[in-house]
Amino acid sequence: MKNNLFVIFGATGNLTYKKLLPALYRLMDQNLISSATKIICIGRKNFTTKSYIEDALTQVKEEINWSVFKKSLFYYQMDIESMPDYIALKTFIENNCQMYTDNSIFYLATAPGLFPIIARGISEGNLVSKEDLKGRVVFEKPFGEDLDSAKKYNQMVRDYFDENQIYRIDHYLGKEMIQNILVVRFSNKIFEDIWNNKGIKSVTILAKETGGVMNRGGYYDGSGALKDMVQNHLMQMLSLIAMEPPEDFDTDDIRQRKVQVIQKLKANFNAENLLVGQYKGYKKEKGVDPDSKTETFVFLKAEIDTERWKGVPFYILTGKQLDEKKSEIIIEFLENSHSHKKWPKDSIQSNRLIIRVDPEDGITFQINTKIPGLSSDVKPVVLDYCHGCQAIGNLPEAYEKLLLDIVLGDTTLFPRWDEIEHSWQFIDQVKAYLGDTTPIEYTNFEELRKKVIK
Amino acid sequence: MKNNLFVIFGATGNLTYKKLLPALYRLMDQNLISSATKIICIGRKNFTTKSYIEDALTQVKEEINWSVFKKSLFYYQMDIESMPDYIALKTFIENNCQMYTDNSIFYLATAPGLFPIIARGISEGNLVSKEDLKGRVVFEKPFGEDLDSAKKYNQMVRDYFDENQIYRIDHYLGKEMIQNILVVRFSNKIFEDIWNNKGIKSVTILAKETGGVMNRGGYYDGSGALKDMVQNHLMQMLSLIAMEPPEDFDTDDIRQRKVQVIQKLKANFNAENLLVGQYKGYKKEKGVDPDSKTETFVFLKAEIDTERWKGVPFYILTGKQLDEKKSEIIIEFLENSHSHKKWPKDSIQSNRLIIRVDPEDGITFQINTKIPGLSSDVKPVVLDYCHGCQAIGNLPEAYEKLLLDIVLGDTTLFPRWDEIEHSWQFIDQVKAYLGDTTPIEYTNFEELRKKVIK
Repeated sequence: MKNNLFVIFGATGNLTYKKLLPALYRLMDQNLISSATKIICIGRKNFTTKSYIEDALTQVKEEINWSVFKKSLFYYQMDIESMPDYIALKTFIENNCQMYTDNSIFYLATAPGLFPIIARGISEGNLVSKEDLKGRVVFEKPFGEDLDSAKKYNQMVRDYFDENQIYRIDHYLGKEMIQNILVVRFSNKIFEDIWNNKGIKSVTILAKETGGVMNRGGYYDGSGALKDMVQNHLMQMLSLIAMEPPEDFDTDDIRQRKVQVIQKLKANFNAENLLVGQYKGYKKEKGVDPDSKTETFVFLKAEIDTERWKGVPFYILTGKQLDEKKSEIIIEFLENSHSHKKWPKDSIQSNRLIIRVDPEDGITFQINTKIPGLSSDVKPVVLDYCHGCQAIGNLPEAYEKLLLDIVLGDTTLFPRWDEIEHSWQFIDQVKAYLGDTTPIEYTNFEELRKKVIK
Repeated sequence: MKNNLFVIFGATGNLTYKKLLPALYRLMDQNLISSATKIICIGRKNFTTKSYIEDALTQVKEEINWSVFKKSLFYYQMDIESMPDYIALKTFIENNCQMYTDNSIFYLATAPGLFPIIARGISEGNLVSKEDLKGRVVFEKPFGEDLDSAKKYNQMVRDYFDENQIYRIDHYLGKEMIQNILVVRFSNKIFEDIWNNKGIKSVTILAKETGGVMNRGGYYDGSGALKDMVQNHLMQMLSLIAMEPPEDFDTDDIRQRKVQVIQKLKANFNAENLLVGQYKGYKKEKGVDPDSKTETFVFLKAEIDTERWKGVPFYILTGKQLDEKKSEIIIEFLENSHSHKKWPKDSIQSNRLIIRVDPEDGITFQINTKIPGLSSDVKPVVLDYCHGCQAIGNLPEAYEKLLLDIVLGDTTLFPRWDEIEHSWQFIDQVKAYLGDTTPIEYTNFEELRKKVIK
């Protein structure tokens, strides 16, 4: 097992405390990566390693054996906009963990606006070299704020690194049931054969949250549901659901098929198939513009302009302060064109396959059966598979899987640049259509449901 | 709600105590049939109504409010081979429950050999009239001992009654999940579209028991698994699974489609696709011939000679003293002819739909998914639907449903004569092929499994 060095920029942020440190700890604890891994946590704040660990102790919720884990941690204070600081960082690494640099991973857990400057620093400080392909660089999502900025950032980043060194994070791709989509599609003939417009009536991809923006108002107000959720998580789910069968299932094959679907997404909107909302009270959230027109809810109906999907609506729905925390994909299969006279038409529902991503990983399959008892009427029931229940211990967190793949050098679960590019292109089209639209105000999901569910 | 009169022949037998009386009580208790229903229990034994009820009290296991139920019960002692006794029975009915005879049901819970004489008595005693279609007659299974005897019995029975007055019991048809077969097949397009040799690889119909012949050795030794189980229960399951779609789902339509499938059953046997066994110790059971060659286990592979089923094996398996008590139907769907290189072929199993008839009513659907955790390998998992869990209170017993249908005059769940005729024809062919074959001795299912599961 190789030694690893993780260098985290943005180490005093939420993501590091809530996700990255716990995931790294678990990977080390389970010996999935070397237990001698070193982690340099970089921030602007005036911490020592000792005081940083003390702070982390109060912020990290997961159970961690700190007396072990702290041996892996360093805090390093620097100004990420100062090039000499990267030279100093290199010296610090050489002095403190030279033997760990065989496999160096630089994780940019920062706002995308800082990607170019940090990338430049890492490159000019000779921490990662494009020439000998040493070192990997991880970019937290979102990659860009729109198509233009994403292109610009990507251009700069690509000046410094080879595409094979670049890992663009979309943590949904690390979720168990998202990884399961291709398995369910391509290892079950019963589904694979009807995974098209002759078998499927509609696809719904949803990610509902119950909370508001919390302490992320400043970031969120410049983003909104479309950029925060649709451009990345929901678009990735859609591409896995809708892509053509890969031939080899290797990384490039899969990423190629995904981008081809995103390219074929049609943005052909009207008031019926695009709705944005903003929850009541949003404008008063900390960090939010009191006149904000940022959407905290979006529903849209997209179409995919391919032979396979002609005529099949793809519904996308996400938002904050809704009725439940739930992320899932609902495949609604076509009904019989004939109806057997035996049962009233409205008692029979279409068969559905529901891939439950969050909070309970699993699969639901809805079919029609006889009502139990002396009645011979029909009603829909669900067959259930609980994915988490099958795991020994807990299911790995998405970040655990992704960090492991970065260490192993497997880029399959990371979006390639062109996937991100075409996702932004689609989102830019939606934003252009919306223009200066004021989102409708909502207080609960019921008000929205009436408008979006036929 | 009409008054009902039930007259049970064989009222001191197991079936009456274990099934018929409890079912009638529950139907009355739930007001599904008139709570003023009268039940005349007929036997050879020297009981009074009072002493019969005392006996029933010790034999019936179900919770019954006897102080209420006993008001419905009469015991009537007679010699069922004596014609004058039927005249006397008529007088008894006129004297005791004349106002209940609008809807008279005569239930022959006896060995089939007694059907002709009781039928004659009922008819000649003017208890049931073929002319005005008054009264119904119920024949417990098995209807006959082979094709010849069944034909003979049927001819005699039909001399006395109209086909519409005749209810041939196969209590499996009253089971929830057997009733559910047509619903699952024809109200779910996802299954209906592939319910043929292009979608289905094999069908297995099994009814395994753990017990031996218990106190039924005398009856069983003259019958065996083929006549006791396959001719009726398993053949009925097969016909519901394999029949062509009915047009109207009315009684005659469904029974017509069922018989058409049974007619097309091919008995084309060899040592590979027909195996009979006898459990060790069977010959020492009470009532069993010490040289008995009666089979207590049978496995056979049948084919159905129709366009829909060409090439699809139908496996039938039933027996006593096996590993578990289980009755279910396993639909194994075809696998993909192509295999995606991603997953090793042997990790992917064919999709299966399992209709669980006994002991836990429900549906299992087997698909392949990702192994939970950091592995990306594939394994089969099951999605589950528990039918009983959905019921308010307990699921009705099969006999409850069937007795209710008899009261309501619905013959859908009762095999028509020609279904029974062709089932016997098939069984006679199997018996002819077997000839004097000595069943292999077995002590557990594992020994048999090796011989029958490829």
